[in-house]
Amino acid sequence: MNEISPITEAELSGSLDVTKPEALIAHLAKAGRAAQSVLAQMPSDARAQALRCAARKMREEAGAILAANANDVEAALANGLSKAMVDRLTLDGARLEGVAAAVEAVADLPDPVGVIIDKSERPNGLKLSRVRVPIGTIGIIYESRPNVTADAAALCVRAGNAAILRGGSEAAGSNRAILSAFTAGLAEGGVPKAAVQLVPTQDRAAVGAMLTASGLIDMIVPRGGKSLVARVQADARVPVLAHLDGVNHTYVHSQADPAMARAIAINAKMRRTGICGAMETLLIDVQFGDAAGLVSSLIEAGVEVRGDARALALGPQVKPATSEDWGTEYLDAILSVAMVDGLDDALAHIAEHSSAHTDAIITDDEAAAEAFLSQVDSAIVMHNASSQFADGGEFGLGAEIGIATGRLHARGPVALEGLTTYKWIVRGSGQARP
Amino acid sequence: MNEISPITEAELSGSLDVTKPEALIAHLAKAGRAAQSVLAQMPSDARAQALRCAARKMREEAGAILAANANDVEAALANGLSKAMVDRLTLDGARLEGVAAAVEAVADLPDPVGVIIDKSERPNGLKLSRVRVPIGTIGIIYESRPNVTADAAALCVRAGNAAILRGGSEAAGSNRAILSAFTAGLAEGGVPKAAVQLVPTQDRAAVGAMLTASGLIDMIVPRGGKSLVARVQADARVPVLAHLDGVNHTYVHSQADPAMARAIAINAKMRRTGICGAMETLLIDVQFGDAAGLVSSLIEAGVEVRGDARALALGPQVKPATSEDWGTEYLDAILSVAMVDGLDDALAHIAEHSSAHTDAIITDDEAAAEAFLSQVDSAIVMHNASSQFADGGEFGLGAEIGIATGRLHARGPVALEGLTTYKWIVRGSGQARP
Repeated sequence: MNEISPITEAELSGSLDVTKPEALIAHLAKAGRAAQSVLAQMPSDARAQALRCAARKMREEAGAILAANANDVEAALANGLSKAMVDRLTLDGARLEGVAAAVEAVADLPDPVGVIIDKSERPNGLKLSRVRVPIGTIGIIYESRPNVTADAAALCVRAGNAAILRGGSEAAGSNRAILSAFTAGLAEGGVPKAAVQLVPTQDRAAVGAMLTASGLIDMIVPRGGKSLVARVQADARVPVLAHLDGVNHTYVHSQADPAMARAIAINAKMRRTGICGAMETLLIDVQFGDAAGLVSSLIEAGVEVRGDARALALGPQVKPATSEDWGTEYLDAILSVAMVDGLDDALAHIAEHSSAHTDAIITDDEAAAEAFLSQVDSAIVMHNASSQFADGGEFGLGAEIGIATGRLHARGPVALEGLTTYKWIVRGSGQARP
Repeated sequence: MNEISPITEAELSGSLDVTKPEALIAHLAKAGRAAQSVLAQMPSDARAQALRCAARKMREEAGAILAANANDVEAALANGLSKAMVDRLTLDGARLEGVAAAVEAVADLPDPVGVIIDKSERPNGLKLSRVRVPIGTIGIIYESRPNVTADAAALCVRAGNAAILRGGSEAAGSNRAILSAFTAGLAEGGVPKAAVQLVPTQDRAAVGAMLTASGLIDMIVPRGGKSLVARVQADARVPVLAHLDGVNHTYVHSQADPAMARAIAINAKMRRTGICGAMETLLIDVQFGDAAGLVSSLIEAGVEVRGDARALALGPQVKPATSEDWGTEYLDAILSVAMVDGLDDALAHIAEHSSAHTDAIITDDEAAAEAFLSQVDSAIVMHNASSQFADGGEFGLGAEIGIATGRLHARGPVALEGLTTYKWIVRGSGQARP
């Protein structure tokens, strides 16, 4: 969720104070709201079936989708887009099949809508229950990744929400082709096409209109680079479900098993260096017996290690860390390493530098582990596991709309439940309040 | 929660772009965060006991508190404050005892912190659980009601949060005296005094600094009139738990019991006309047999009835409603009445005009009731009950921090659970992600 995407940031860099786009977004939102009220009343199976129709339609329309994508890619190459951007933009038969299969997987997820959170009966006989309902209309702002068009739409529809999608301009043709097939499938399944809409302009002001559409759009989910997310958060009047930094720590406690510490540290840093769950700082207890071995195994694995004064003593290849390193999300094969004097020192370092995404302890000491899990105030805290497990799929949530680094509404991996709210249902027999 | 409070609005009407206040708020937030990290690690009983100490201290300091309040009231009278404002500002022995008892009641509420929301075990052996934790630091912005100082502080502390309070200037002396006793009691109970702080200036810019203190204050709860709340929502960069309109409908279905309809309608409108749960619009089904009797009983109860064309025929005392009436929260003994052609017509009227706070149906037809409860998208939907039950206490939540009219994080009456978030705890045995 955390790739740097300069293009999308550039799209957001224009004036956000225009009136026409507001009329456009209001129009989309009104159509979406009408479709959502139909969607919200459909049985869960019908919503799931409509998503399966959408997946089938995308397969049937593969030719048109891939042709549109080829045009987008051609233009992107002509415009000198980066290799990484072009790769994220590019679809082929296998990738498109993956997108369709992902939509089917979302259809198979348990439906959060209608779930009774709790119920009670009051002394006066009133029967109360809190029941999950869709949030309403979700705005998704994302970069030039055509797969997000189907992924995000499927999650919103599964939870009974309308979606208003605003993708990166380089993928505009691909997105239109995917949405055309997707909504045709939804319609076959009885879901109004307006349940999922694409903002039909690349005018940056349309993004601003989405961000300020209070009462029209109920939640905005930005999916892209940090600057995009920060910009969305700064300008939004609508609640934002956002993901920012993943400055994740792994603390190797004095009682850590040396082999486990090596295996987890190498995995947490190197399995995939570019994901938000990657470890960025390793804290080694001065009482841990294998500090030098741990660091050299990381260096052998290809990690550039930047250490504090005491970590420099662990090996000649350790480079000195600067104060910036402790707050840096490298998203690369680079690791900052600090030696700490016990649990409290580790907790203090994490409290000062963590982005509260995912922090882990490696130890065989259960008491130390529980103290860490209790006292580290992060969205995800782990004991004897790799921080790279910080993922909705790994948590058993199915597809995720994102990982939230905020504290309200939803925290950590967010899937279908995070796309719902609740209402209070009160059943009486004529009660008047004394 | 919904009194008009011109004074507090005036306080917010200044420039919110100053730098000194930002340093002040940052200072308070840093102190609050440190205190909160202690508070969050205290056993639940210790937090509850500290609140009981705070209540006792307020009783012990009653003389000083009432003296400070008398000065505030004297100044308010000299400044020609409205009778209602002065009444809200005024404390006496009985009211102060009520405030102390309310703090003890909060201490007795079940603690949401540490509650396990759900747990699972993954095929790879990872054990996951979601556990409730405090949100962190809560900013409360309220009018000149000294009781809110203790109420809000108690709720925040019970759920392990730090509170930064900014009360109305007319109550500044009372608030200082209450907080001095309250925090002295907390300290006796082992809670750092900085867990609850008052903004020590009435400079309006301090409010602006609170609203933009992202990363320092985790949530803002405005408690006061609509204009205050709207202004807070417009300027806030920090998530806001807000209450706006309560344009509440009661739909009397064709199968409603006439006696029940009269009793509930009169209670919903007249028990207390100034609260957000009061009925503002009555929808009468044209098939309901006692429409004229229902309306005349409301008029006899002292209600000014403003009707649509068909409702005018129900009696000579019915005045014609204008289009504004359907969206108006009167908070007074005034009621708009529309005749509707069955359930769908009622649902359409509610969808167009409701503020999604509390809407009710009166009927003996269970199918109609369930259709209404399912299709009305409001925070609270009721069957055969008075909308005046829309209250945290009546819902069994104990004291409430407010009633939320937004859709995210918490909806409807919000008590302790709404002052918490959760974290994911992952317990492993050395798992690395493949």
